[in-house]
Amino acid sequence: MAANGAKVNLQQKYGKFTDRWSAKILAQINEMQLKAVKIKGEFVWHSHPETDEMFLVHKGRMVMRLRDGDVTLDAGELYVVPRGVEHCPFAEEECEVLLLEPVGTANTGDAGGARTVEPEWI
Amino acid sequence: MAANGAKVNLQQKYGKFTDRWSAKILAQINEMQLKAVKIKGEFVWHSHPETDEMFLVHKGRMVMRLRDGDVTLDAGELYVVPRGVEHCPFAEEECEVLLLEPVGTANTGDAGGARTVEPEWI
Repeated sequence: MAANGAKVNLQQKYGKFTDRWSAKILAQINEMQLKAVKIKGEFVWHSHPETDEMFLVHKGRMVMRLRDGDVTLDAGELYVVPRGVEHCPFAEEECEVLLLEPVGTANTGDAGGARTVEPEWI
Repeated sequence: MAANGAKVNLQQKYGKFTDRWSAKILAQINEMQLKAVKIKGEFVWHSHPETDEMFLVHKGRMVMRLRDGDVTLDAGELYVVPRGVEHCPFAEEECEVLLLEPVGTANTGDAGGARTVEPEWI
């Protein structure tokens, strides 16, 4: 458990973990948390009925699969998934992503299931 | 005026403006807005009594002056200024920064004055 108070170096934080699809909390801004996650392969289709969710690619490439088409995101590109919109993140090779979402947002949203992970501070 | 809906390429967005200390809105996530700003020189000492504020350096180096010391931030480093904490951003050379703060947050906080700027979408 950590908290705000010191500066955060993204590269150093991504170097501290290897597990995928398990977001780590980097900072909290009011009720929102910025999280670091490594992804590879396909996640589960889900939505967050109560909240928007921002994905910002730090390194690599990911695809945000949406029911009406894919959005490819390279490093330095971001996309906001609006609340209630079904999405399924995918990455062919490992990709480092920053997530921004409210405290308590489940990674699997309304889908739940085995891939649900409780985030921890890093 | 723009809004969410398409992906945002940070480098492309920073290439669209040259004015400093005038944040441009890139995305909105619930009540929070992600903004791009270019800074050089010293801003004004101020605080935001109602909200935390995140600074993430995209390119260059900035110093967050705080009453109890400076925090130097290079590209890929972030810092959260807690609500109510006086701060004064500074950059010796032009620096590109991402800001995260609630809709309606004044750039000069409780200080007000001539350097107050209303942000626009870019």
